[in-house]
Amino acid sequence: MSRSQLIQQIKSKKSFLCVGLDTDIDKIPEFLKQYRDPVFEFNKRIIDATHDLCIAYKPNAAFYESRGVKGLQSLIATYEYLPKDCLSIIDAKRGDIGNTSDNYAKAFFNEEASGMGFDAITVTPYMGNDSVTPYLKYDGKWVIILALTSSIGSKDFQYLETDGGHLYEQVIKKANTWAGADRIMFVVGATKSTEFTSIRQYAPDNFLLVPGVGAQGGSLKEVCKYGMTKDCGLIVNASRSIIYASNGADFAEAARSEALNLQQQMQLELEKAGVI
Amino acid sequence: MSRSQLIQQIKSKKSFLCVGLDTDIDKIPEFLKQYRDPVFEFNKRIIDATHDLCIAYKPNAAFYESRGVKGLQSLIATYEYLPKDCLSIIDAKRGDIGNTSDNYAKAFFNEEASGMGFDAITVTPYMGNDSVTPYLKYDGKWVIILALTSSIGSKDFQYLETDGGHLYEQVIKKANTWAGADRIMFVVGATKSTEFTSIRQYAPDNFLLVPGVGAQGGSLKEVCKYGMTKDCGLIVNASRSIIYASNGADFAEAARSEALNLQQQMQLELEKAGVI
Repeated sequence: MSRSQLIQQIKSKKSFLCVGLDTDIDKIPEFLKQYRDPVFEFNKRIIDATHDLCIAYKPNAAFYESRGVKGLQSLIATYEYLPKDCLSIIDAKRGDIGNTSDNYAKAFFNEEASGMGFDAITVTPYMGNDSVTPYLKYDGKWVIILALTSSIGSKDFQYLETDGGHLYEQVIKKANTWAGADRIMFVVGATKSTEFTSIRQYAPDNFLLVPGVGAQGGSLKEVCKYGMTKDCGLIVNASRSIIYASNGADFAEAARSEALNLQQQMQLELEKAGVI
Repeated sequence: MSRSQLIQQIKSKKSFLCVGLDTDIDKIPEFLKQYRDPVFEFNKRIIDATHDLCIAYKPNAAFYESRGVKGLQSLIATYEYLPKDCLSIIDAKRGDIGNTSDNYAKAFFNEEASGMGFDAITVTPYMGNDSVTPYLKYDGKWVIILALTSSIGSKDFQYLETDGGHLYEQVIKKANTWAGADRIMFVVGATKSTEFTSIRQYAPDNFLLVPGVGAQGGSLKEVCKYGMTKDCGLIVNASRSIIYASNGADFAEAARSEALNLQQQMQLELEKAGVI
């Protein structure tokens, strides 16, 4: 999906919501267990209930890998079911040397090879340039690089002071020399909304994927205040607060209700910023 | 596998060789394609030909993930075939927030859940503490943290100067506060042998997993000169130089010959340092 298609989706759906499919088989409603692939059944119903309210879906690979072959089959089935008008992001946080990253790119971008052809992948920057560029060989696909995360551990290294600013600022500056804002996004945690100001100095045009709204406690208003651009420039992810809004038979309706609540807040923010 | 068992293996096999199973289906001998799982057949013969010469095997997850479900089946079959006297390392370079890392730990350490119960996993440190500690909940398993890699991209961030030294030094210092040298190892590229001196200041006892000998050009002698401890403290990996030593029907013998060559050099180094 191109940058202009993404912006078009945001404007037409009046939303910049990404639904995180961190689907844990131990947390889904009991009645789904009767199906051959309960995790896929859960995801399918979540997708059916939310696709007009969000512009992206983001399965987190770990939740599927933890179930071995069955989990991978659920992930592939979910990938195949994702609506084509939504950006499909695999949250895989990979990062390895060049010839290995070539293989990770194949795993998540090359449908013929692996069964999956996501639009975007999250990657970790520690190994630098050659760990990221293999993904850029795939035209029209996105690399979403970890910059500042919403986790407790972010303070261990991401905030280290270097000659050229915090480590996370160095990551943004360097990565933006590898490709443009039509190919690279950054992960920036919502719990750090005041830091969006400095991030926007180095990444004025990049889309930022923002986890941490909802279960992790970040504020949507704050994120928009400091992070929104004229093209929106934000994809805000919510996972647990949507997909586990109810544990009963009404889980999909409850998920829709949570997603609708966020979409409505997002519409207000988009209007306020003049994006729509 | 405990630290003392690992040291015992090194002493009895007179080797600290790890064979990297970065098995690319496009690079294995043609005649193996007749088998149901050619990648597993290849790995099986490599293992049969080398297991008395090495103390660890390290499949790189990317090479399996790139083939989707079939690839994962090859990886699981390979895991099951790995000799129990060798340390089994999954080179996965994962790193995510706590509840996600719990799932990655399950994927690679919990055989009942995923079909795989490796002894050790490589992880990337960018997200800090909570991205690493979930793996430490598994008694007797190892976390191998990326510190200084042998890739071109290592200069982008790993060498950044911070208040407390290079980023890679900060990673080593911080990670050693999370657990002891009986649970944590570090990845240190062989192409940086002079840096082993400073690394040993911060990691006097940790085992170092050293890729980059062979195809990537590192020197075993240099690595040993600067990195070896009284317990050896090194696991040196070679992948392509061993597994692709020949592309013909003699590939397993050629792999053995390469492994033997490395084991003999290693024996000399172990004797020189008084480890054996």
